[in-house]
Amino acid sequence: MTRTVYVNGDYVPESEAMVSVFDRGFLFADGVYEVTSVLDGKLVDFDGHAVRLERSLSELGMGHPITKDDLLAAHRELVRLNDITDGLVYLQITRGSDGDRDFVYPAADTPQTVVMFTQNKPGLADAPAARTGIKVISIEDQRWARRDIKTVQLLYPSMAKMAAKAAGCDDAWMIEDGHVTEGSSNNAYIVKGNKIITRQLSNDILHGITRAAVLRFAKEAQMEVEERLFTIEEAKQADEAFVTSASTFVMPVVEIDGATIGTGAPGKIAPRLREIYLDESRKAAI
Amino acid sequence: MTRTVYVNGDYVPESEAMVSVFDRGFLFADGVYEVTSVLDGKLVDFDGHAVRLERSLSELGMGHPITKDDLLAAHRELVRLNDITDGLVYLQITRGSDGDRDFVYPAADTPQTVVMFTQNKPGLADAPAARTGIKVISIEDQRWARRDIKTVQLLYPSMAKMAAKAAGCDDAWMIEDGHVTEGSSNNAYIVKGNKIITRQLSNDILHGITRAAVLRFAKEAQMEVEERLFTIEEAKQADEAFVTSASTFVMPVVEIDGATIGTGAPGKIAPRLREIYLDESRKAAI
Repeated sequence: MTRTVYVNGDYVPESEAMVSVFDRGFLFADGVYEVTSVLDGKLVDFDGHAVRLERSLSELGMGHPITKDDLLAAHRELVRLNDITDGLVYLQITRGSDGDRDFVYPAADTPQTVVMFTQNKPGLADAPAARTGIKVISIEDQRWARRDIKTVQLLYPSMAKMAAKAAGCDDAWMIEDGHVTEGSSNNAYIVKGNKIITRQLSNDILHGITRAAVLRFAKEAQMEVEERLFTIEEAKQADEAFVTSASTFVMPVVEIDGATIGTGAPGKIAPRLREIYLDESRKAAI
Repeated sequence: MTRTVYVNGDYVPESEAMVSVFDRGFLFADGVYEVTSVLDGKLVDFDGHAVRLERSLSELGMGHPITKDDLLAAHRELVRLNDITDGLVYLQITRGSDGDRDFVYPAADTPQTVVMFTQNKPGLADAPAARTGIKVISIEDQRWARRDIKTVQLLYPSMAKMAAKAAGCDDAWMIEDGHVTEGSSNNAYIVKGNKIITRQLSNDILHGITRAAVLRFAKEAQMEVEERLFTIEEAKQADEAFVTSASTFVMPVVEIDGATIGTGAPGKIAPRLREIYLDESRKAAI
């Protein structure tokens, strides 16, 4: 089946989904994105992603080229057209193009670029890795300083993922000034006893939509949550570790830089949070 | 006149110069670029740009999808087709696309994307700003750590340029750990007496092609060159200041954060270096 892709209001076959070489997303990485999960054909936490998208656009002084209602309608139409039961909807908005290249932003009335596409991921919520846990390496955080804005400047996270793969691992946790910031495309957590520890929000990390939901569910389940800096050494000594993201939900981490975490298998907290998160997300999906 | 653009071996009208929305240049800023000046219809320091391009590709583990000879031929063909006397040739190479989105790099045999276009800039070497000098502000350097690789992750430099514009200035000098790294798209210099001071090469700054040539010419002209860190305070006290880039050559800076540099007009060293650089570049252009 040929995938149908949304490009600036049109639904086109993926082979015809193109943007100008003058698009600022291509020339300057001047664009932001969101990834929303689809479970049972419904969108998970669409509202959270729409709100964060607005924030990213505002922080960069970009216009809001599509209303939340139209965004939702387009997400649903893509899910329908591409017959997605479980998968993802990717959305990217750039500052567009005035037909040439200049560091200076184009005029405010320059049409922005809006692209959306689906990724079909049957059994997304049933990933085998969730039962075994994943292995991570640590790597220096060399990204720009505004990681709270979800831009497409994703070269370093890609490099981090490749470094992890080269080391026979699944992902990388990034370290800045001695402390873990986050994973290459997820937020990072450790568990000590009944306490979940994760870095506090700032410009240093993405304000994860899944992170917010998981911490809320954790508190509702009487787990203690501590938002603070932690080192990779502390992580290696933790009882459990895990990551959260829109596409992996809650994913146990069982090895960090070769050190086994806990028993080397997912513990009690992370799988329980995953279960709660998936249950609640399915219920609230739209 | 409709501009002709090079896209993966084809010469197409600019309105048809498109790339896939799945291109990693668009989704991940996974691409590198070069800008080569054209004076009198000839390419300035093409070799220098070709060598740096190879380095950028190698540092990112990208293939080299076009030979230096073919690159030169394409540059010349674009100059010819677009009737460029003075202007720029922009080149961008990305890791291409395997038709979907994944942080993990696509297979090594995935075709990369090669895009080139010209920008017509009549009188490029005779910019009025070179006679009056430009004004800069200072701004925190929030870019990623590998500025020696010329990637398209140019959002922060764009933001810096906009901040300068909002302050009624022309450009921004970026500050990291108290020291000037470079301008938004150029290398930064100060002058004390007969001594030219500029930050030493490292991963913190771009290894400017124009920088290398200008420092060589400066030494040949018996000027003293000191490559070391300097602060914005030291810059404000300097006799002269200037920037270099492939498109502005040598450009005097006459104001930094509102402080007048020297007499407030271009001094002796920067205009002399500009003259030497332009003379030598015209002679060596191909």
